[in-house]
Amino acid sequence: VAGIAAFRGSDLPKPRLLLDWIVLDGSDALPKYRQLYFQLRSAIVSGRLTAGSLLPSSRMLSQELGVSRNTVLNAYEQLAAEGYLESSVGSATSVAPRLAASARQHAVEEEVGSIGSQRAQRFMRSVALSLTLPDNVAFTPGVPAFDEFPRKVWSRLVAEQSNRMQPEIADNDMHVGGYGPLRESLALYLRSARMVMCEPAQIFIVSSARAGLDIISRLVADADAAAIMEDPGYNTARDVMHAVGFQVIPIPVDAEGLRIDVADQLAPRAQLAFVTPSHQWPTGVSLSAQRRKELLEWTERVGAWIVEDDYDSEFHFASRPLATLQGLDGGRRVFYTGTFSKVLFPSLRVAYVVVPGPFVELFRRAVFISGQEPALHIQAALAEFIDQGFFSRHIRRMRSLYARRQALLVDALIESAGDSFPVERPAGGMQMALSLPQRYPAMAVTQTAARAGLHVRSIEMYALSNPAPNALHLGFAAVPDGEIRPAAEALVSAILAAR
Amino acid sequence: VAGIAAFRGSDLPKPRLLLDWIVLDGSDALPKYRQLYFQLRSAIVSGRLTAGSLLPSSRMLSQELGVSRNTVLNAYEQLAAEGYLESSVGSATSVAPRLAASARQHAVEEEVGSIGSQRAQRFMRSVALSLTLPDNVAFTPGVPAFDEFPRKVWSRLVAEQSNRMQPEIADNDMHVGGYGPLRESLALYLRSARMVMCEPAQIFIVSSARAGLDIISRLVADADAAAIMEDPGYNTARDVMHAVGFQVIPIPVDAEGLRIDVADQLAPRAQLAFVTPSHQWPTGVSLSAQRRKELLEWTERVGAWIVEDDYDSEFHFASRPLATLQGLDGGRRVFYTGTFSKVLFPSLRVAYVVVPGPFVELFRRAVFISGQEPALHIQAALAEFIDQGFFSRHIRRMRSLYARRQALLVDALIESAGDSFPVERPAGGMQMALSLPQRYPAMAVTQTAARAGLHVRSIEMYALSNPAPNALHLGFAAVPDGEIRPAAEALVSAILAAR
Repeated sequence: VAGIAAFRGSDLPKPRLLLDWIVLDGSDALPKYRQLYFQLRSAIVSGRLTAGSLLPSSRMLSQELGVSRNTVLNAYEQLAAEGYLESSVGSATSVAPRLAASARQHAVEEEVGSIGSQRAQRFMRSVALSLTLPDNVAFTPGVPAFDEFPRKVWSRLVAEQSNRMQPEIADNDMHVGGYGPLRESLALYLRSARMVMCEPAQIFIVSSARAGLDIISRLVADADAAAIMEDPGYNTARDVMHAVGFQVIPIPVDAEGLRIDVADQLAPRAQLAFVTPSHQWPTGVSLSAQRRKELLEWTERVGAWIVEDDYDSEFHFASRPLATLQGLDGGRRVFYTGTFSKVLFPSLRVAYVVVPGPFVELFRRAVFISGQEPALHIQAALAEFIDQGFFSRHIRRMRSLYARRQALLVDALIESAGDSFPVERPAGGMQMALSLPQRYPAMAVTQTAARAGLHVRSIEMYALSNPAPNALHLGFAAVPDGEIRPAAEALVSAILAAR
Repeated sequence: VAGIAAFRGSDLPKPRLLLDWIVLDGSDALPKYRQLYFQLRSAIVSGRLTAGSLLPSSRMLSQELGVSRNTVLNAYEQLAAEGYLESSVGSATSVAPRLAASARQHAVEEEVGSIGSQRAQRFMRSVALSLTLPDNVAFTPGVPAFDEFPRKVWSRLVAEQSNRMQPEIADNDMHVGGYGPLRESLALYLRSARMVMCEPAQIFIVSSARAGLDIISRLVADADAAAIMEDPGYNTARDVMHAVGFQVIPIPVDAEGLRIDVADQLAPRAQLAFVTPSHQWPTGVSLSAQRRKELLEWTERVGAWIVEDDYDSEFHFASRPLATLQGLDGGRRVFYTGTFSKVLFPSLRVAYVVVPGPFVELFRRAVFISGQEPALHIQAALAEFIDQGFFSRHIRRMRSLYARRQALLVDALIESAGDSFPVERPAGGMQMALSLPQRYPAMAVTQTAARAGLHVRSIEMYALSNPAPNALHLGFAAVPDGEIRPAAEALVSAILAAR
């Protein structure tokens, strides 16, 4: 096997990896140090770089890649701060043992840098977070309280639908684009709860929001088009759009959300804008009414389409969520996507896209051809789950549960932090951003917290090219009430220790 | 709305449709008359062309499109033979009423020819058969006997898995690429039953075989690469590869299967070959041992990858199926795909791809990024279904059921046909090709049969550019035993009436 397994000469105390599969792309909107960071992290997480392996020195690697030494140092430092790499005496850098070991099982150790198409290389250059979840739920973002899910009801409904197995449920060709009754129930829900303007025929049921984004991206523009997204933002969306051929241009976010003025400067020919306006992922900021207006005007002017990912609008308990962009726009330029993964449970694999009228026929074909549909008996069970009222009941229960858990967390953080740092009370959701003073670097906190058995992410882990705020991203929805206070206390200790 | 709704001047007895959304692409491997045929059929099936609408005369349309009048006449005639169009007095051609009405509900009547990317247009130019299934099962191909599926067992297993809802089942991020135990059960099955050479890590669970093909196509080559497939062949595979950007080159099939010599002439730079070697869809021919060897040598020489779609290998009852290409090749250049849709029930939406070792890591990322995974509790139920022996028991039961049904059908056909035409006894499967003498044109039979309430397809409906054999494609797996003889008798009458 070339590359990975090959080693440098024996004049070194221990052989160092030859990283010649790394490809830094000058035309990519991501700075090279971020590309290097993501590619190394992917290789470590997938087990291609095994525990204890020595990396080339920053000087060596910068020469080999033809980049400045700072580029390499930046990437190495961030990976070390996140616990992927370790520095030992004499400044030798190696792959950290614990992480690589747990991830190794998932991977076949195979050289992949030289195989496949150019677009395959785009899949390899993914930036999404580690594909494996840690065992602890405090404070992993994006995890719902699945032990609270009414699984008895759900398994009864699924069993009923499987057992009935009517031809119209057994054969999906009768329901290309989604099970009819589910589309109708969903249309009612989206119109009333989210003021989304839609007919059932505009709703497409897909396996996941990213499967929907994959199709949208292919339909709205061709390879090499520009797309914008929020930075920090939803890494996986970047990967999907990048894989499809887009040049993805990260646009900074401020207290009102996406900076439309910057988008106008950097991406005057964007054809797609991916946004999370209700509750920006990961900062939690709501896109202000003024910015919503500006965004719609801007996309209209430049001729771009919008993907509005409304991933957790159900759980905005402190305030009513703002009207959707889709509703504001009358559904003309906005693809609206949502998922059942966050509301029910992640492995359900049912999400939906509301597409603008002119795209309906196209989307129907694309969903059929790309074979993206979830099992019909799951869709049928979901339609029953909604129609029989379990869905809204579960949302209400979780809304109050998550509100309580957030309050418990914020109270405990305020109390433990005392005078050390202020804690703001956020608006809702399943996770929150906790801003920290600069003297407690969030990257360092992820490490001190990990030693205390807590999984926290730094907002910087979602950064693409712009500087990210010094803040943590804390998921609390799945943490049992009784564990919140001790976990919060341990977290504050970890923050103070990271000074 | 431009185009569709716009009409020609009032000097005509009735306004004729302006079909200016039709795009005939000279660089496409499909002849223009086939492109025109597929685009018109799609528009009719989707309801964009409504019942009774008058089409332009062949002279008018040939001028508007800049093609020969024969091109238009060929397309019109085939559509008329299949019942999509009607010819009335004065040679005016209109959309047939029955078909358009039943299909209309599925479509939003919207102009789509002018929206979206160039690759979106490729989705529009799909050639797959009508997306809607007829109500009658005699003799629709590809439909299993889902009333025989052990749905009590299945619904119990699904309910158990949903009810248990362990975190490792609730969260799919733990099982990127597929539920671990299912991959292991499947690896055992494929190794023993199909001599596929694979480790569990090489198996990826996807929503459908076409979803798998979508990913493979994107990974092995870039847009504008050439792919070959069998002609007549699996239309949807053509659509998937075409949508991803391939120039799809149809290669004729003879009694030994794919003509490798023609592939070598027409596609010397092919990067992908899609084949159904066990039981060619739709002719039923097995790729001979010699051709298998030639195909592997040829792809090795030109550097192409193979997708081996083994869609119904489970049901070859008369003879043991030949060893898979994947096994012959040692899994080096072959992606092997199979589906549970044909064995269990179509709307289950679980299929799998066995990928060559070097593609494992790439595929894992691509599956994750494109979000193609089925619900984990379905995957877990399927693993139990296999491990507890229900899967092989069901295959054995269906193998003997389908063998019996095929025998009943062939016996009844032989008896009814008498001296009129010979009927060959095919080797197995869920459907069979019935060759007809030229004096009974298969296209005309589809119409006389439809009048008798039978749904039969002509093999020509799968033809892409080469002349297809004069034969019918008959699905018998789902036809209850007692209905086979009367349906066969009605079919023979329909054949004789089509003379």
